[in-house]
Amino acid sequence: MIYDHDTIVASATASGGAIAVIRFSGEKALECCDRIFRAHSGQTLARSEGYRLHYGRILDGERVVDDVLVSVFRAPHSYTGEDSAEISCHGSSYIVGEILRLAMAAGARMAEPGEFTIRAYMAGKLDLSQAEAVADLIASSSRAAHTLASTQMRGGYSAKLDTLREKLLGLTSLLELELDFSEEDVEFADRGELARTIDGIEDEILSLRRSFALGNAIKEGVPVAIVGEPNAGKSTLLNRLLDEDRAMVSDIAGTTRDVIEEQANIGGVLFRFLDTAGIRETHDRLEQMGIERTMKSIERARIVIRMIDPCQKEEGMAELKIREDQTLLTVINKIDLCPDCTIPEGALAISARSGEGVERLKEALRDSVDTSALYHGDVVVSHSRHYEALGEALEALHDARRGLEEALPTDLLSEDIRRVIHHVGAITGKGEILSDEVLGHIFSKFCIGK
Amino acid sequence: MIYDHDTIVASATASGGAIAVIRFSGEKALECCDRIFRAHSGQTLARSEGYRLHYGRILDGERVVDDVLVSVFRAPHSYTGEDSAEISCHGSSYIVGEILRLAMAAGARMAEPGEFTIRAYMAGKLDLSQAEAVADLIASSSRAAHTLASTQMRGGYSAKLDTLREKLLGLTSLLELELDFSEEDVEFADRGELARTIDGIEDEILSLRRSFALGNAIKEGVPVAIVGEPNAGKSTLLNRLLDEDRAMVSDIAGTTRDVIEEQANIGGVLFRFLDTAGIRETHDRLEQMGIERTMKSIERARIVIRMIDPCQKEEGMAELKIREDQTLLTVINKIDLCPDCTIPEGALAISARSGEGVERLKEALRDSVDTSALYHGDVVVSHSRHYEALGEALEALHDARRGLEEALPTDLLSEDIRRVIHHVGAITGKGEILSDEVLGHIFSKFCIGK
Repeated sequence: MIYDHDTIVASATASGGAIAVIRFSGEKALECCDRIFRAHSGQTLARSEGYRLHYGRILDGERVVDDVLVSVFRAPHSYTGEDSAEISCHGSSYIVGEILRLAMAAGARMAEPGEFTIRAYMAGKLDLSQAEAVADLIASSSRAAHTLASTQMRGGYSAKLDTLREKLLGLTSLLELELDFSEEDVEFADRGELARTIDGIEDEILSLRRSFALGNAIKEGVPVAIVGEPNAGKSTLLNRLLDEDRAMVSDIAGTTRDVIEEQANIGGVLFRFLDTAGIRETHDRLEQMGIERTMKSIERARIVIRMIDPCQKEEGMAELKIREDQTLLTVINKIDLCPDCTIPEGALAISARSGEGVERLKEALRDSVDTSALYHGDVVVSHSRHYEALGEALEALHDARRGLEEALPTDLLSEDIRRVIHHVGAITGKGEILSDEVLGHIFSKFCIGK
Repeated sequence: MIYDHDTIVASATASGGAIAVIRFSGEKALECCDRIFRAHSGQTLARSEGYRLHYGRILDGERVVDDVLVSVFRAPHSYTGEDSAEISCHGSSYIVGEILRLAMAAGARMAEPGEFTIRAYMAGKLDLSQAEAVADLIASSSRAAHTLASTQMRGGYSAKLDTLREKLLGLTSLLELELDFSEEDVEFADRGELARTIDGIEDEILSLRRSFALGNAIKEGVPVAIVGEPNAGKSTLLNRLLDEDRAMVSDIAGTTRDVIEEQANIGGVLFRFLDTAGIRETHDRLEQMGIERTMKSIERARIVIRMIDPCQKEEGMAELKIREDQTLLTVINKIDLCPDCTIPEGALAISARSGEGVERLKEALRDSVDTSALYHGDVVVSHSRHYEALGEALEALHDARRGLEEALPTDLLSEDIRRVIHHVGAITGKGEILSDEVLGHIFSKFCIGK
């Protein structure tokens, strides 16, 4: 990746809409647009003020490619901090292709994924975790995921990490002051006080690490396995859960195109239903493989819905082992067919076919995910990159704590704390020089045009 | 459909991009936006000049939904001729859904398909055929389809029809002048001259009708059937034609989503390859059904590629009946395997596997479609609605011509010409009051947001 100010161009909209937007940014973005655009007013974009719209035509020589509107932004008042322009054209794939071709002939080059946001980051408009949140915001399809990304993008998350970093910097400056006076063998930092500070920081990092389970589930969708014997009604229930709620996710064309599992937005949280085969004792090799896959789905799930058909005698359904961090919802299905069956304590009685009781099951699903932290503005970690960085920070912190107990020399202590600072700083990119490789990895997940 | 100026709102972009655009139009479009938008500058949109951009936030009460840019257009300088606004937000389906929900709570209603363009039509910014071309332009995925829609949208097509209509109006005014003086039994319009004018108009309408074959093929894709015995290499050829050229159509995600047959853009023209089964004499019922389907594909095709494997002996391949308006391309495949086989006069020798000769086949395909008329700015009919209207016009014209020969009274002649004018006028909507039903039908094919 090249971090200079050459002009980049990309389509910022998906194909298939009434209009498409093509985005330019760079020192010569406006001159580049002027080569392919003629405003009806006769004015050039290069002489335009920022925050102005211009109506005119995209020309390929004398051939009119399209009637368009161009938005002009002047540095530094743009997303990237550079001069920028956005061409709003008719949403035809041919027209978009032609405008991109002409733009490149006029001196622009195709933007890499996330390159507009990289420039915003390089210009200091966003820190790294905020930049990552931009991609999350675009991908968000539920209120919870939106809140998560929104809080992070607006800097709530960065502020928390900055505070943590300040505390750590306070620690090292104390320790380094000692080093300056090391000849005199003074201890500026009271060792008991130091230990308490480190313990406090450890608590904060641990709490951030713990929030990742929620953050990741919110971002990726809460994994739910629906398990039960064959014909317990798993598919019927899934269809019912999707029929009513999938619409919220997919009433805008294209949303669910890349989805492998079935998703439904229930009460503002995205749930991801994992495909499972019926579980029963069997000697059939193929069926055994299906059951093994089901067991793996159960392992990945945060919530397991165990469906029981009260009309059928359960023939040795394998014991379901649920971990402490998982929620088990036992569901007695087909109550319309077996109205007299006994409902065990804590189980939910439903009819997937008629829909009876399904609303209560949805509430139970929703209640299994405690999002209160999210809506109270608490900081929730949702990126595995951050989770891993916090893990490394924690390790270095433990080294420092151990060093303190073993009364290691101040310079070694200070080095451990510096490592903690490095890992915490890498999350927002503040105070840390990150390698091109790290940056490239972060932004490669972006879509082109952002 | 209601043709008033209430505020309509719709997403104008497809889901899945970095950004999304939500469009508002109506007398109170800006007031409506002001209810959900707060500009960082503090200025309200209702007090903004046109062609200005405003940066700010979409708010749901105090909750920030997104950071957005709003473009303001003031009547009559907008697409619809009304006050309009476009919100450019992050391309998340959740955010788009929230903004639409808030907009409706603020007094807007969801736009019907094509309703923005209907308003442009009602405001006299476009005639009907130009409005139809807007939808064609958005759907265009080849240079030829783009040129076709572009010419029509910019009014080249309307001008041609207007000229035709002027001539017809000239005819009726002469005839009606006669009616005014009917007591005196004068003939202002020389009957020989009248007949010549009518014949001239007939030629023009016939030529327009003839252009529909090209226009429709360009718009929908030129249908090509690849036929031959089983294992002649039909699929290999299709894959080769698609592999190289499909990219041009589909390198922007989503283009080919709704395509049933395979499409390829060859030399700026979209070709549609129809699925065909191998043809041979068979008693297998299932295979016979496949062959019947193939025969139907051949009927629908403009071009038939007949593939022959020279290594195989042809076992009574059914005789291919080609209509006069169809082109037959005979292709000898697998020349890499049978380098010594004789190539019949006019046949193309290729190897679908190695790619040898495929470039020449593509040229032959491209040459089979004469698009010179298109690029010379000639008027080409591409809508079946227009084709049918021209057919009705022609019928009325024939009635008038017959009436002239049979020396029918002037008032009957005049009535026939009035019918011709009505049908020609219905294409652009000029001079004709079209029913809501007709308008509704035309615009129902539009996407929402246009």
